Amino acid sequence: MKLHWSPRSPFVRKVMISAHELGLVDRLDCVRTVAATVKPHAELMLDNPLSKIPTLILDDGSPLYDSVVICEYLDNLDGRQRLFPADPARRRLALRRHALANGFLDLSVLRRNERDRPAELRSQPHLAAFATKTTATLAAFEKEAPTYDTTTLDIGAITTGIALSYLDFRFADEPWRPTHPALATWHAGFAARPSVIATHPIDA
Amino acid sequence: MKLHWSPRSPFVRKVMISAHELGLVDRLDCVRTVAATVKPHAELMLDNPLSKIPTLILDDGSPLYDSVVICEYLDNLDGRQRLFPADPARRRLALRRHALANGFLDLSVLRRNERDRPAELRSQPHLAAFATKTTATLAAFEKEAPTYDTTTLDIGAITTGIALSYLDFRFADEPWRPTHPALATWHAGFAARPSVIATHPIDA
Repeated sequence: MKLHWSPRSPFVRKVMISAHELGLVDRLDCVRTVAATVKPHAELMLDNPLSKIPTLILDDGSPLYDSVVICEYLDNLDGRQRLFPADPARRRLALRRHALANGFLDLSVLRRNERDRPAELRSQPHLAAFATKTTATLAAFEKEAPTYDTTTLDIGAITTGIALSYLDFRFADEPWRPTHPALATWHAGFAARPSVIATHPIDA
Repeated sequence: MKLHWSPRSPFVRKVMISAHELGLVDRLDCVRTVAATVKPHAELMLDNPLSKIPTLILDDGSPLYDSVVICEYLDNLDGRQRLFPADPARRRLALRRHALANGFLDLSVLRRNERDRPAELRSQPHLAAFATKTTATLAAFEKEAPTYDTTTLDIGAITTGIALSYLDFRFADEPWRPTHPALATWHAGFAARPSVIATHPIDA
């Protein structure tokens, strides 16, 4: 299977960590595809008109996206439903946690884009609203961290870990660990996993 | 169940059309919650720190989001898996179509926000990139429209229909029907469904 991939995208990283955790990483043929917000990628758009990565091309040629849909597909290939639990209540919790972490990533990407606009195009009301939501989401993560499973990762935990790593990568001047000790402890365990080490983001 | 709701949000509408199609609308206690991009909603953030609607509060008090997670929960309550097909290939197609339509909605919301910024804060490169992706996605919808099931809606079809209705609502000066005849025909059938008529957006 061909994967439109980049070492910088946290959404691609969700697929890559999932593939590592499931032992399926050798099945992915990763093709470097650079798709920035203001630079639509013509070739990628033949497979995904939204010009977003990750986009997976199945062996029959059909495209699959977005990241969570690809991860569920990989989890079903494995057949053990480790990332998307079969039990309804556990599945619901994993999906709700995924939605929080993924929404936090969406927010953080928007926040970075706004911060990096030319000064004359930057909107202070947007930056203020993004900061308020960032603070509230980190507080919610901190409150939930003691209840995270530290041995098995589900799609919610994977995405929460990636979202925090994205802060380290793109907002290195905003330390979150001192004010979120339970989260910092949990994330240290996450960051030590081989799947996480193997997919460390590179700004290249 | 309490639903943080607004008559304007296309993501809330996804939940409402799903609930109508499943015969579950009487189970939802809709509470008007206004959450704009730059106006975080303090009470909503107690349930969803991202300040996004829809957010559902289950009878045990636990929150559920985002829209597609709520829709899958409702579909499982019904037990017949009509919106999220059980067959793996059909499920994959429905989820990929949902991702395209939902990503198009995300794009359209960003495009509207950019268009409605004060002129001095508006970014032409962003508007140009958004326009390119809009054109490509509408072309992809048009190509797929003849393959849509016209009797039963799945989550992909529901979200595609809502995305097109959102264009009518927020981009009324950009007629898409003349250049996308197959899509226009399909959408006319969608728009005639009682679930769609009952959830027509109101700018109030």
